Amino acid sequence: MARSNMDALKTGWFSEISDMWPGVCLSFEVDDVLHAEKSDYQDIMIIQTKNHGKALILDGIIQCTELDEFAYQEMISFLPLCSHPNPKMVLIVGGGDGGVAREVAKHPTVETIDQVEIDERVVEVSKKYLQSMSVGFQSPKINLFIEDGIKFMQRNKNKYDVIITDSSDPIGPADVLFQQKYYELMKEALTTDGIICSQAGSVWANLDTSIRCYNNSKNVFCNAAYAFASVPSYPSGIIGFVLGSKNSETNFKKPAYIMTESFLKNNNIRYYSSDIHSAAFVLPTCFQKYFK
Amino acid sequence: MARSNMDALKTGWFSEISDMWPGVCLSFEVDDVLHAEKSDYQDIMIIQTKNHGKALILDGIIQCTELDEFAYQEMISFLPLCSHPNPKMVLIVGGGDGGVAREVAKHPTVETIDQVEIDERVVEVSKKYLQSMSVGFQSPKINLFIEDGIKFMQRNKNKYDVIITDSSDPIGPADVLFQQKYYELMKEALTTDGIICSQAGSVWANLDTSIRCYNNSKNVFCNAAYAFASVPSYPSGIIGFVLGSKNSETNFKKPAYIMTESFLKNNNIRYYSSDIHSAAFVLPTCFQKYFK
Repeated sequence: MARSNMDALKTGWFSEISDMWPGVCLSFEVDDVLHAEKSDYQDIMIIQTKNHGKALILDGIIQCTELDEFAYQEMISFLPLCSHPNPKMVLIVGGGDGGVAREVAKHPTVETIDQVEIDERVVEVSKKYLQSMSVGFQSPKINLFIEDGIKFMQRNKNKYDVIITDSSDPIGPADVLFQQKYYELMKEALTTDGIICSQAGSVWANLDTSIRCYNNSKNVFCNAAYAFASVPSYPSGIIGFVLGSKNSETNFKKPAYIMTESFLKNNNIRYYSSDIHSAAFVLPTCFQKYFK
Repeated sequence: MARSNMDALKTGWFSEISDMWPGVCLSFEVDDVLHAEKSDYQDIMIIQTKNHGKALILDGIIQCTELDEFAYQEMISFLPLCSHPNPKMVLIVGGGDGGVAREVAKHPTVETIDQVEIDERVVEVSKKYLQSMSVGFQSPKINLFIEDGIKFMQRNKNKYDVIITDSSDPIGPADVLFQQKYYELMKEALTTDGIICSQAGSVWANLDTSIRCYNNSKNVFCNAAYAFASVPSYPSGIIGFVLGSKNSETNFKKPAYIMTESFLKNNNIRYYSSDIHSAAFVLPTCFQKYFK
């Protein structure tokens, strides 16, 4: 943390150096450090970048930038939601910036969104500095719970049509969300035909993580798949998602719900479409073997 | 150039800072600077990176790294080649590292590949340091010409089934390759049903360039399209390609030639497939309007 702050203040650039992606890093030119604190769980920083808007950084890792966050938030939301014919009850684990809530609330059949975030400070900082994302918390569909997502899910079995896990990377508090027992827990919290979608790293930057998540899903659910989106702010410029379904009829590559062009336009959906939903599951040849 | 060399030697990292993508840059940790020179056309540097193999850098801009160059070389080659039912004569403009030649030579119907590179030093440096790419020059199908691609094309009209323009970015010697008169010249060098494919920037990092290239193609050819590939070493992690065809029947999104799984495996084709060919044309919603 100290080094990132010092880098940002001394050199005018924030560099996302991490052992998770050795030998390469993305840097953003910083106009200002708007906020920095240490919560009970992690270091939280908001920077005003020169060209990417504001960025949320947790423990030195970029969570989102205003420039391209819509790509991630839309895909992690609509890949599972549109793979389900009629999702009503949705659970979001993590997502303290509010962007996933913002997108999920747009889905026409969704009635209730329970969101459980462990770190209240992320929510508060987002409400103050990232209003284009935290606007998601204003939806009447949202019930926000500040607690441990695992404990929350243990109390809410057989309840959700879709569970979205919008976590940070598997270092620190989020590591437990990348383990198979978490996928087993999600299965119990889902309804009969429920679907999950979890942030699962990039095949270029975190292949082990992507494979681990996919195998977790495949071991637990009757249907599993891996998809990716183009998000320049993330290491290697892409981020992956692992999906799983309790319904053997689910065909992730062919969305059950088709969003029309006018729906996309009227709801300010800027990355997702039914076509890109299908295309997102087409991986470069060398990576396909890990996700069969 | 001086700053890049000094950065690489002093800090141990090479940072690709450019006015073409202000406020953001990708950095690679450097084990060694293997070669640096100033040719008649540009600064040429080869660095040994910690995690991406060797990298070729021209005027401070990363052209390719050994880790992920296959993604770019395969897509710029096979998108046009597999959109043509029977390509025999191919022209490569640029591509001095040899990687595009390596891929084009794999296509079964291709008989002759003329390659025209303006800077002989890029070829020589590649032969010495980037043998996994310069092996392309060893194919018996290749005729390599060291000269200005524009002048070469003016002498070779109505000759090529496919023209691939593997250029650096529109700053410096390659700028002329991004102008409409170049697309008109290519049209004259093509056979009746010929197809072109040119490096066309990233919608995230160089949207103006991508749009300019697409409009050039659309103004000159009866069929034009834009596709992209995931290449982590490039700004924003993706790179785009503009295609054009003199054949009104060409459907870029549905390849005319299907590469089987065994063909891909036997020819060490690791990114491209017929499925990813089609998927490459599916753009995020917000960018689609520029490429209709």
